Amino acid sequence: MGTRDVILDAAAEVMAEQGLANVTTRQIAKAAGLTEAALYKHFASKADLMVAVMRERSPGFSPLAEALRGGGDLVGSLTAVARAAIDLYRAGFPMFASVFADPATLAAHKEELRQEGAGPHKANEALAAYLRAEQEAGRVRAGADVRAAAGLLLGACFQYAFLGHMSRAGFADDEEAAASFVRTLLETLTPTPPPCHEPSA
Amino acid sequence: MGTRDVILDAAAEVMAEQGLANVTTRQIAKAAGLTEAALYKHFASKADLMVAVMRERSPGFSPLAEALRGGGDLVGSLTAVARAAIDLYRAGFPMFASVFADPATLAAHKEELRQEGAGPHKANEALAAYLRAEQEAGRVRAGADVRAAAGLLLGACFQYAFLGHMSRAGFADDEEAAASFVRTLLETLTPTPPPCHEPSA
Repeated sequence: MGTRDVILDAAAEVMAEQGLANVTTRQIAKAAGLTEAALYKHFASKADLMVAVMRERSPGFSPLAEALRGGGDLVGSLTAVARAAIDLYRAGFPMFASVFADPATLAAHKEELRQEGAGPHKANEALAAYLRAEQEAGRVRAGADVRAAAGLLLGACFQYAFLGHMSRAGFADDEEAAASFVRTLLETLTPTPPPCHEPSA
Repeated sequence: MGTRDVILDAAAEVMAEQGLANVTTRQIAKAAGLTEAALYKHFASKADLMVAVMRERSPGFSPLAEALRGGGDLVGSLTAVARAAIDLYRAGFPMFASVFADPATLAAHKEELRQEGAGPHKANEALAAYLRAEQEAGRVRAGADVRAAAGLLLGACFQYAFLGHMSRAGFADDEEAAASFVRTLLETLTPTPPPCHEPSA
């Protein structure tokens, strides 16, 4: 493992223990077994290091992307997406929320996302694209707003993960939450039955 | 204005400018025109003061509660709720996210919420109760899961507010976001037309 990775591992560990508000480069250097000077050979500033930790040591979107490629039916795929999203958002929330406590780290993080065209909205775009493909295949109602539907499902999972950290999330467990969000959303999204004639009186 | 309020105003201002990670009680005392000793007469610790700022200087749920009491029709009321939720979550996000950067403040905040039975889940409970009343009045489909529906709508608004801070929120503006979330959700929630007989072949 290179020095850069040693520093990132140490920084991720100190961040998780102390919170971003209390992390010092001195502590990180100590945890990595290096001097602060050695640390600054790899990262220009504390904000720069924190941003690298977020990019390289936080849960990625790959489990969610995998759920979308799963090839199952609509209910199964969306439930797998919701489960993956809950896990991802729960694991990532403390780290991503923490950036709001430090304007320099937040600005550096946003600038990097902007340059790379990356960001948390990518998950919503991927789910909307999946739903659009299902719509073209006739498995999602023709008039359904797939972008809003993606916002409803991933938003519900995002807030559920946040509520679980803070107070009460209101569901028995993750399975129940994921299943009930998908079921409630799907009643909108699945094609309506063909209209039938009025029975002759 | 009492000394306590002077301190809370100063703390809220310094928090917004510097970020929770960089706030010191020395800066807050200076902004309030007091000594640090005077500050500690009113608050036991920095975490204690930060928690009081969050409780007493952050946007409250009253605009959302007011939208629920508005007495309009289902579409109008839910759209007003979504607009109020977007404003509330957008204004509150930086402050509430910041607590995750400091384990001591997070623990104190959670303990206070627990003791008071308060927390962000209260908005979801209020919306679910509203939808349950509409269900009893026959304006929401009998089988609809009102708790999941509340999670979908408020979750969408919560994530939309977060995405707007971070990267791209994916909608033209708040009006469009609120209206499309409600419309997409309502197609589930409104009562289905009564079943009709199969036409005789």
